[in-house]
Amino acid sequence: MLDAAIEHLRANREQHLEQLKEFLSFPTISTLSENEPDIQRCASWLADALRGLGFSRVEVMATPGLPIVYGERVDNPDNPTILVYGHYDVQPVDPLDEWNTPPFEPTIVGDDIFARGSSDMKGSIFASLKAIEAIAAQGALPVNVKYLIEGEEEVGSKNLSAFIDEHIELLACDLVLNCDGNILTPEIPAITYALRGLAYFEVEVEGPSGDLHSGSFGGTVHNPIHALCELIAGMHDEDGRITLPGFYDKVRPIADEERAALAKLPHTDEDWLALTGAPKLMGEKGYTTIERAGARPSLDANGIVGGFISEGSKTVLPARAMAKISMRLVPDQDETEILDQLREYMRQNAPDTIKWKVREHAHGTGSVMQRDSKGMQAMVKALTEVFGVEPVFRREGGSVPVVGEMQKKLGVDSILTGCGLPDDNIHAPNEKMHLPNFYKFTETYARFMFGLSD
Amino acid sequence: MLDAAIEHLRANREQHLEQLKEFLSFPTISTLSENEPDIQRCASWLADALRGLGFSRVEVMATPGLPIVYGERVDNPDNPTILVYGHYDVQPVDPLDEWNTPPFEPTIVGDDIFARGSSDMKGSIFASLKAIEAIAAQGALPVNVKYLIEGEEEVGSKNLSAFIDEHIELLACDLVLNCDGNILTPEIPAITYALRGLAYFEVEVEGPSGDLHSGSFGGTVHNPIHALCELIAGMHDEDGRITLPGFYDKVRPIADEERAALAKLPHTDEDWLALTGAPKLMGEKGYTTIERAGARPSLDANGIVGGFISEGSKTVLPARAMAKISMRLVPDQDETEILDQLREYMRQNAPDTIKWKVREHAHGTGSVMQRDSKGMQAMVKALTEVFGVEPVFRREGGSVPVVGEMQKKLGVDSILTGCGLPDDNIHAPNEKMHLPNFYKFTETYARFMFGLSD
Repeated sequence: MLDAAIEHLRANREQHLEQLKEFLSFPTISTLSENEPDIQRCASWLADALRGLGFSRVEVMATPGLPIVYGERVDNPDNPTILVYGHYDVQPVDPLDEWNTPPFEPTIVGDDIFARGSSDMKGSIFASLKAIEAIAAQGALPVNVKYLIEGEEEVGSKNLSAFIDEHIELLACDLVLNCDGNILTPEIPAITYALRGLAYFEVEVEGPSGDLHSGSFGGTVHNPIHALCELIAGMHDEDGRITLPGFYDKVRPIADEERAALAKLPHTDEDWLALTGAPKLMGEKGYTTIERAGARPSLDANGIVGGFISEGSKTVLPARAMAKISMRLVPDQDETEILDQLREYMRQNAPDTIKWKVREHAHGTGSVMQRDSKGMQAMVKALTEVFGVEPVFRREGGSVPVVGEMQKKLGVDSILTGCGLPDDNIHAPNEKMHLPNFYKFTETYARFMFGLSD
Repeated sequence: MLDAAIEHLRANREQHLEQLKEFLSFPTISTLSENEPDIQRCASWLADALRGLGFSRVEVMATPGLPIVYGERVDNPDNPTILVYGHYDVQPVDPLDEWNTPPFEPTIVGDDIFARGSSDMKGSIFASLKAIEAIAAQGALPVNVKYLIEGEEEVGSKNLSAFIDEHIELLACDLVLNCDGNILTPEIPAITYALRGLAYFEVEVEGPSGDLHSGSFGGTVHNPIHALCELIAGMHDEDGRITLPGFYDKVRPIADEERAALAKLPHTDEDWLALTGAPKLMGEKGYTTIERAGARPSLDANGIVGGFISEGSKTVLPARAMAKISMRLVPDQDETEILDQLREYMRQNAPDTIKWKVREHAHGTGSVMQRDSKGMQAMVKALTEVFGVEPVFRREGGSVPVVGEMQKKLGVDSILTGCGLPDDNIHAPNEKMHLPNFYKFTETYARFMFGLSD
């Protein structure tokens, strides 16, 4: 039966690719209210896809924000149940003029398909659907399957936590397959066993009550841009450590054995330099790049704006300046404490020549999973069979807050892997997905489900 | 004859106000190429106005940028000749949503007229035209008059220097009346005898070659926003002094007698706080607010932008960040040396984890004028007669580069005063002009011209 399912996947690649293009063409940017109708249409499209796979209970479930697509197919109550997690929303596309092809007109160039959301993460969730289609074409599924596909991951999954609280029974399962992961290179598969948490803020600094002429007033009042720059500059010390009061208090040190394992990952700083295009790497003193990327916390200004930013010159001393600032967190930092730490930093460091406000946008929990569970072993086997090499275990710098949420609330670990690559330009112009990865993951997910029932 | 001219001005206020509204309704924003047709129309409108006043030679003169309106009326070659300087271009209007009335639909509220360019400086140049109209209605002018009204003052007068070089004879005069000044309060007239120079730059910092996901890459490369903030934060030391290498080397110290005179100006820090709305004043240690505003150099970030700045959150580590940075200069700083000082600062302080570029937008010379010349005395007399109190002499923080240019190239001082007030919101939303000032200045300029021929 497994062989027949694999055969089905290989025979239907062209058709699957056309369906994928349809999925990718919905502009499901969750942060923009103008895209809400597209989001509703995409949710219906996914619900129809689940119904087409023989799912008995399928529902587009409302939340106070954007809807969650839920579906379940229980072929045998005695079999284990997996909950497949994914999201159908995507990042904004700006700067649009840096895209080589329109972000919502999926375009194939060589082995890659370019579209916003292709790698993060419509491609992977769609690969899981095709795996189930292939198995279902042969008869009953070897495991019971539930789907939870949300529409707010890129805006911090702000309604997911309450949704899980309200649907503990509905979502009950033995294991989560979280498709929102990626691998290292087209040849090296990976499973992510640890994720950083996230805390995201907006910091606004106000000086004069209105914009002033910088010639008449420059040198007499504190320019809010300067004040904001001074505050941001002070958030790291000379060793690259974050200076928010108490920020490192709960950070779990990296165990020696884990440092040794991370050091064996197929990573070189030269590759990382080439991948980022940065002139030089930089970060917290005393830790390797791999450790800084996944096992240590970080702080980034994600955006800054103030004053006159159009073409030409305007001699203004602006009334205000704003920055978006987010932190990536590691176990055992508590994401709900970061707001207080940031406010305390501002209280200690903001001068009385300006006023300031801090607003929290989103936060999410980090997590670390067991590496020797039955689910983990099934995924190792599936990836090894498909890629011909064993997967590496990695920590991921990005946040998938739902992993921590489900660990806490449903009591289950997530197996986190998907077909993205580090150079897929996720959250950036020209996002792409490598099609050979996509095909491999349809087979990987199919093998994984059979493996679970062994 | 003077009395009849004054009578003419008072009898025609309503008509003059209607003409002023017409002048103010041209959206002559020189930094925006889309407004070029409006600028051409406004230049023609001014040329027609000069012709209407009996000017014999009137020309809209092309430059590599925006046109200069020139006109002259020589009633008696033996009389002294004054060159009246002004500009008909205006600042951009953003943020547009903070305007209470449309910026190019002049609106009278109480004693004020609200419109972009009303105070800076269409109102004052128009007042000078009405003064001449009133005198011309009585017969010959007591002085010969030339007009130079440029269209690029708000973008650094970039073609004016070459224009003066090419028209030294055409512009020959005994004195410049520069209407681009302002007074202190509706009751206290002022003449500006010193101006700060200007140097305006764009600084761009580049890190990774494209935008990165801040979760995956945060903590491993230098965020260009952080780097730019660190560089801007470092441009002032703890005493509020500017740290560019060599920046203060040529700054002329303020003489004791001048400090004493500045201390007598009708200024209080409480007024300045109320005027700016800032929580607290700030600036270079060891100098009063008035000294810092006019007699000491300053540095301001006029704008900053990088990363994601729309509504919501995006976890991006951006590829680049940019700031507009300008310096106000005092005698004897050389505005052409500041670019090198800024580059040297960047060389010394920018880390090798980023790349940077500095681009110069504009620069202008500062200047100091004789306070006991015949022209200055004529203006003191005119202002005293109209306002009933003697004008104060002041240094101005803003730049009027043409004053230095004309001092250098035509060998003449400028008498600098106009009807603007410090709270007119120039370069900001809701720019206004106080109409009683406007009427007083039509009379002041008329009296000044008679005074010159005494």
